[in-house]
Amino acid sequence: MENFNFYSPTYFSFGKDKENEAGALVKRFGGSKVLIHYGGGSVVRSGLLDRVKASLKAEGIEFCELGGVKPNPRSGLVYEGIELCKKEKIDFVLAVGGGSTIDSSKAIAAGVVYDGDFWDFYSGKYIEEALPVGTILTIAAAGSEGSPDSVITNEDGMFKRGATGDAIRPRFSILNPALTQTLSPYQTACGITDIMAHLYERYLTNTRDVEVTDRLIEALLLTMVHEGPKVIEDPNDYNARANIMWAGMMAHNNSCGVGRSQDWNSHNIEHELSALYDCAHGTGLAVTMPAVFAYVMKHDVMRFAQVAVRVWGCQMDFANPEATAREGSKRLQQFFISIGMPRNFAELGAKEEDIPVLVRSLCRGDGRQGSISGFVTLNEDDCANIYRLMV
Amino acid sequence: MENFNFYSPTYFSFGKDKENEAGALVKRFGGSKVLIHYGGGSVVRSGLLDRVKASLKAEGIEFCELGGVKPNPRSGLVYEGIELCKKEKIDFVLAVGGGSTIDSSKAIAAGVVYDGDFWDFYSGKYIEEALPVGTILTIAAAGSEGSPDSVITNEDGMFKRGATGDAIRPRFSILNPALTQTLSPYQTACGITDIMAHLYERYLTNTRDVEVTDRLIEALLLTMVHEGPKVIEDPNDYNARANIMWAGMMAHNNSCGVGRSQDWNSHNIEHELSALYDCAHGTGLAVTMPAVFAYVMKHDVMRFAQVAVRVWGCQMDFANPEATAREGSKRLQQFFISIGMPRNFAELGAKEEDIPVLVRSLCRGDGRQGSISGFVTLNEDDCANIYRLMV
Repeated sequence: MENFNFYSPTYFSFGKDKENEAGALVKRFGGSKVLIHYGGGSVVRSGLLDRVKASLKAEGIEFCELGGVKPNPRSGLVYEGIELCKKEKIDFVLAVGGGSTIDSSKAIAAGVVYDGDFWDFYSGKYIEEALPVGTILTIAAAGSEGSPDSVITNEDGMFKRGATGDAIRPRFSILNPALTQTLSPYQTACGITDIMAHLYERYLTNTRDVEVTDRLIEALLLTMVHEGPKVIEDPNDYNARANIMWAGMMAHNNSCGVGRSQDWNSHNIEHELSALYDCAHGTGLAVTMPAVFAYVMKHDVMRFAQVAVRVWGCQMDFANPEATAREGSKRLQQFFISIGMPRNFAELGAKEEDIPVLVRSLCRGDGRQGSISGFVTLNEDDCANIYRLMV
Repeated sequence: MENFNFYSPTYFSFGKDKENEAGALVKRFGGSKVLIHYGGGSVVRSGLLDRVKASLKAEGIEFCELGGVKPNPRSGLVYEGIELCKKEKIDFVLAVGGGSTIDSSKAIAAGVVYDGDFWDFYSGKYIEEALPVGTILTIAAAGSEGSPDSVITNEDGMFKRGATGDAIRPRFSILNPALTQTLSPYQTACGITDIMAHLYERYLTNTRDVEVTDRLIEALLLTMVHEGPKVIEDPNDYNARANIMWAGMMAHNNSCGVGRSQDWNSHNIEHELSALYDCAHGTGLAVTMPAVFAYVMKHDVMRFAQVAVRVWGCQMDFANPEATAREGSKRLQQFFISIGMPRNFAELGAKEEDIPVLVRSLCRGDGRQGSISGFVTLNEDDCANIYRLMV
């Protein structure tokens, strides 16, 4: 195991009606004037926004609002939020929504207290300081409610990049599984796919003898395989929603990824798809992951065989471990298809003739030198081959 | 799943040589004058204490020392530590040792800022305030490095009780697996047993549909079953030590126990043994757990069958699930014996004629009303029967 530091100081308030604690939690964590940041109209229509405002008012906390966050959140709204916070002397950013809203909130929180362009953080600068952020989560997916990460799409060229820093870990996150019961099966499935991707990205490691994190990742994958179909079948299954919601947080706060190298090539390869086609991140991942795994499988057949046996219930083929490894990845793709995810470029709305554009942005964009690194280092030819496997 | 709050703000610094960060971490978390609290001579002999002092000096941090913590830490030393801290105007308590040293440090940290008798916290009062505590862990066992809990033995009657509060969660914990390589196989096995007990206490629940935490607990149990024998065989197996050390923290910071009722009857039943005979907590647990499980098995046969199949590799006997459940508990006890733990009262140094004394203290001590509650409520007859199963 490699040396590591682990820090996850977020206070999690989990369960039914917990959004009514928002005001008390903002106060506990030092906020007095709040920016409520959210996306479309669903949090308005559901009455959630009103409940949150009532909770803030009950504690005497002032607030202003900024809605309009889109999936694959954009830099333009971040700049707008930063200006608004400065003008209104905001001291706390409260995200009400999913990963996109939380990521946009984190970007605003970091940008407000920074003299330069907030995009510097998305070009590699570590976030040392930010306004405190709280979240009220409405979809189990991104894991941003417990992570030090944020991903934003730069509208000046439509490329998607990540930033990180302990300062943008939420001070508190309210996780009420009942809030996710209104999601469509499609949105739910996108979230499930994203969570499983976060787990596979950590599972694909070159570090040896990391039994504890292997087992924890497998436990969370098994949870998704067991609980995922339940919520697709019955969106109102509260307990299945709850299991998925806690698994989604645990999948990405890194308690199951410490002390080991990680992959993240699938995420990088997918980011180009959602940046160019504005598809949902989950749908892009469902198409990307099987292609990446097929391409890199020979790098460590036994690792893919292990997940096939332990998570997908495959019988180990001791004479031909690669057959077991392939069977595991096949079952992963079948699982994605069974919950309604796309299987190829056509179903995703992507085009084969765009592959050179995707590869150029992926391997040359934003300072990269012709390759991406992870479980396996992939050059431009490799990435083009992987995109072709998705056609 | 039940509603819950989860808060684990400890900063973990994990890996080789990490004890040299002690000074920087004390500084980061606001300490300027430190009480270094430790147990016997091993941390002196190994040079660990000197390295920690050098690290504090390098940061210009003052300190004084209090050694002498014993396994099953005593109230007397806590009172001494509280007086010392007040006299020396200490603002940070640094535990260098195992669970006993950390628990004693937490008791001192809570007692220093409290006007009354610190024992109030061990009689049920929640700890709202305490000096900040940091830890440098030397054995994977108690999980106190990441928990809000402390257990102390009151010398006025020799009974053992627990206290809790977010204020005594360590601000930082340094986990260097190499520091545990000097432990004897016996000490190591006691730690492994304690960790597995923390997992079983959470596994035995009456809450339904808690797949995610079931799976996480199973993952950590599998880690212990896989890695435990390695470190008994080769005490210098760094990676196995590392896997056990992270599992020990994860087993007890409650990320795998949220949203579900828990048991803790085995711990309560064992505490009377280690209080009366001063045996190691782990040895008491190795004898207690199989007896408790045999006694309560019929309360939920399928739960015991589940752990038998998923952790102990038993074949499910669909015609007779109880046979599977029993086989799982048998394998648990065989595992304990295989790593050198005792199997009965005689090997533990306990006496059948003391059972009435044990039962009285367990069920009537410190305000209890004739029973203990958990997975199953156990009255005095039940507890006597369970102790008799250990003979």
